[in-house]
Amino acid sequence: MEQKVADPTLQKALEQFNLLDEKITHFSSIIGLADWDQKVMAPKKGRNVFAKASGTLRTEVFKLSVSKEMGDLLEALTSPDNEVNLDHVTKAKVREYKEYYQKSKSIPADLFQEYSILTALANDAWEEARENNDFARYLPSLEKIVAFKRKFAEIYGYEEHPYDALLDEFEPGLTVKRLDPLFAKLRESSVSLLERIKQNGKPTQAELFGQSFEIEKQKKFNRFILPIIGFDMDAGRLDETVHPFAQTVNIGDVRLTTRYLEKNVRSALFGTIHEAGHGIYEQHVNPVYEDSVLQSGASFGIHESQSRFLENMVGRSKEFWTFFFPKLQEYFPAQLETISLEEFYRAVNTVEPSFIRVEADELTYNLHIMLRYEIEKALIGGEIEAKDLPAIWNQKMQDYLGITPITDTEGVLQDVHWSFGGIGYFPSYSLGNLYAAQILNTMQKDLPDFYTHIENGRFDLIQAWLKENIHQYGKLYTPNELIVKVTGEELNADYLVEYLEKKYSEVYGL
Amino acid sequence: MEQKVADPTLQKALEQFNLLDEKITHFSSIIGLADWDQKVMAPKKGRNVFAKASGTLRTEVFKLSVSKEMGDLLEALTSPDNEVNLDHVTKAKVREYKEYYQKSKSIPADLFQEYSILTALANDAWEEARENNDFARYLPSLEKIVAFKRKFAEIYGYEEHPYDALLDEFEPGLTVKRLDPLFAKLRESSVSLLERIKQNGKPTQAELFGQSFEIEKQKKFNRFILPIIGFDMDAGRLDETVHPFAQTVNIGDVRLTTRYLEKNVRSALFGTIHEAGHGIYEQHVNPVYEDSVLQSGASFGIHESQSRFLENMVGRSKEFWTFFFPKLQEYFPAQLETISLEEFYRAVNTVEPSFIRVEADELTYNLHIMLRYEIEKALIGGEIEAKDLPAIWNQKMQDYLGITPITDTEGVLQDVHWSFGGIGYFPSYSLGNLYAAQILNTMQKDLPDFYTHIENGRFDLIQAWLKENIHQYGKLYTPNELIVKVTGEELNADYLVEYLEKKYSEVYGL
Repeated sequence: MEQKVADPTLQKALEQFNLLDEKITHFSSIIGLADWDQKVMAPKKGRNVFAKASGTLRTEVFKLSVSKEMGDLLEALTSPDNEVNLDHVTKAKVREYKEYYQKSKSIPADLFQEYSILTALANDAWEEARENNDFARYLPSLEKIVAFKRKFAEIYGYEEHPYDALLDEFEPGLTVKRLDPLFAKLRESSVSLLERIKQNGKPTQAELFGQSFEIEKQKKFNRFILPIIGFDMDAGRLDETVHPFAQTVNIGDVRLTTRYLEKNVRSALFGTIHEAGHGIYEQHVNPVYEDSVLQSGASFGIHESQSRFLENMVGRSKEFWTFFFPKLQEYFPAQLETISLEEFYRAVNTVEPSFIRVEADELTYNLHIMLRYEIEKALIGGEIEAKDLPAIWNQKMQDYLGITPITDTEGVLQDVHWSFGGIGYFPSYSLGNLYAAQILNTMQKDLPDFYTHIENGRFDLIQAWLKENIHQYGKLYTPNELIVKVTGEELNADYLVEYLEKKYSEVYGL
Repeated sequence: MEQKVADPTLQKALEQFNLLDEKITHFSSIIGLADWDQKVMAPKKGRNVFAKASGTLRTEVFKLSVSKEMGDLLEALTSPDNEVNLDHVTKAKVREYKEYYQKSKSIPADLFQEYSILTALANDAWEEARENNDFARYLPSLEKIVAFKRKFAEIYGYEEHPYDALLDEFEPGLTVKRLDPLFAKLRESSVSLLERIKQNGKPTQAELFGQSFEIEKQKKFNRFILPIIGFDMDAGRLDETVHPFAQTVNIGDVRLTTRYLEKNVRSALFGTIHEAGHGIYEQHVNPVYEDSVLQSGASFGIHESQSRFLENMVGRSKEFWTFFFPKLQEYFPAQLETISLEEFYRAVNTVEPSFIRVEADELTYNLHIMLRYEIEKALIGGEIEAKDLPAIWNQKMQDYLGITPITDTEGVLQDVHWSFGGIGYFPSYSLGNLYAAQILNTMQKDLPDFYTHIENGRFDLIQAWLKENIHQYGKLYTPNELIVKVTGEELNADYLVEYLEKKYSEVYGL
């Protein structure tokens, strides 16, 4: 379904551009598979050597993306005469490559390769540091990554804050200036709500999750719910890693990971539902975008809106557990037979300041993100250094959540992101929550029986709406275009603030 | 450890050549991983699309290998002035690339890409055909593959038989003319020995393998023996596939697969030992060859010599079971407690014409290979067509082994090789047997206590000899150079004929 035009010169440029797009997409798909493999499957001794190999392929993609051929094609396709003749699909592809080209063309290929290998190897350093509660083992890698990222920010360019250059990689157009007021509003209302819960909230029975839940049965239960909530197991996998993630190889091959903890049944459960949100998004992209840059989700923030929506708006709703709790009781009678649905639902939504982001409740979660956002902003702004992070992390945990991690494993070492160079990534999670609440508001207008559908296990109706309105488009629209198209307005914090207020007032009887 | 020379022009050519070698090796390593993944891990729906992606990377490797840059570098490095200054490592690398360059430079890249995608997709067609006993489903792919191979043989060039051009891909220098007498001698003695066993052999208790052996316990036992026989589990994996194989990603990442059958405990056991032979070879290559074309085994034949050696000369020896049988009895007391070591050893070495090559005994195995060799020779020679294969296969099974498969699944559809374009591959297995017997003869001069070492579980001593004499060199020597270096003479069939004669006379009391 590639565009055809009458002008033979433009037609030729289009064909070359589409071929280059396909080649880059193919290589990226293989890199995605290799990344997944090295985290999930590869034996220890081969990883360092493989990091060089995958660095070489990454560098090839980089070279193609900033090549003279790409530059010439982008220039030809965006000339005033030609641009008016491009269809909206071609325009979107051009937009994606042009943005990257302009930012990255000044980065030398050998610098890029050095960075690729560094980030491929840093995963092991991070894992070892985390396992051994030894930040020092991770620090040399982290320092180098920060140095690279500061350099990249200068090369990419920015108007106000160097961190803007990195935010833009994950959420095109996002800046500190735009994010600060959104986060300020969310922070203010979250801190106030948290305070009211602490003062007046009716206690929940969160201790029920401290029981042992056999891991084999957890695995079965996770595999049981995945297809029901919409994940196509013939077009994906579920495996295990320390840090859960979703990796797309292509539309027909989307791989999720989760982590099973015997003493924390919530961890795998909500981790799996979260990653399924990412995975279903990618499985639903229109196959006409296959083998092109558009075959993936719109942005990290929109992606997180889909995972957080499924995990929280759906997965932590009372209706979700009306449907699934009897089944969960069948799997774990000893642990759950004396627990009522209401008790379970309230326990699932327990608000409690805690150390680990991925296991945080919906309310305190955003505070975990803001802490990371502020650290990254200061790190890239040059106000702090990597070596200071453990102390700053612990101080901010105290300031925001009123608790201090005892170990770095539970603190600054908990997240994988910085090890792969993902500075600027964390804000996507709270953006996702903001997008999700705004999308939920619109969806309920189209599907007034939204919660009844969940209660009846009709996740297909919800997924069909998401596919129709969001998933199918892949990267066709920018995140801002998409949220306006779907909800009629730009992103604002009101919907999430309102959603959290309403939900926790009910859960905690405020 | 790359070569340095005084002449700056030559030094520059050397550096460029080594960089190109590294890039090709890196991409090949990633292709290896992707191939493994698509067979072992990838979900069904993504495979067709991924085949295009991996075809693009394969084509890139092809383009680099036949590029003008490669041609110019090879020419520069092999000029009379320069060649004398190359060390033996550089010479070996040049030899490898030059051979491929000269054969393949006339193949257009788009033809190569078409072939890559075809062979990537044919695996699924073969698997479906095999599962459904439906040769017709595989035929269209097979016909196309044969057409490609005939075309490639013409492009590669040959002196006497077009099949020589394909044999050479797997065993450099091998020809029909050289192979025919080796196989004739082996066939004659095998058929005669088989006849004597049929007439006068003392029966074995092969029926003991028809009992049920729980698959979970089989898995544990396979994982138990792998490290003992020399496979480093931190530098590899063991997984399951319909057709067992070994795939190298790099020296520190070598992946084996096996297949568990409840009613056939031998299948996984000897399959695993066989693949371990391949895997240990690759794990033992000297790390100075890492990231270069030399990091792999010398040839398919030499590779098979290592897998067949471990599977048969070691794994089917009485001493092997003196060491392992008590442990196997612990795993399967109900099935084995009344069986003596002698009975078990003889049962393991039961000679019986059967349908499936990978499960054939050491003696009839070579007859399975000769059947395939003759079919391939006639197919590439244009004497027969793909559609004729089921009938020809069954006729030859009757001629060689005196049995006729009832289904194509047990006949012409049993092997994966043709689906990936591996026409010319099968002879490697019998070559491997020939090499292995010749190597064993030499090894026993250095290690007169060879069988005592096996009996004592001192596989490390045997592996050390193999590493020292064969494995460490990777592709440094051609197969012919290597066998002469190791054994002092060129390959001949006497050692295998003698080995088989001696072994089966003892097993069958002839």
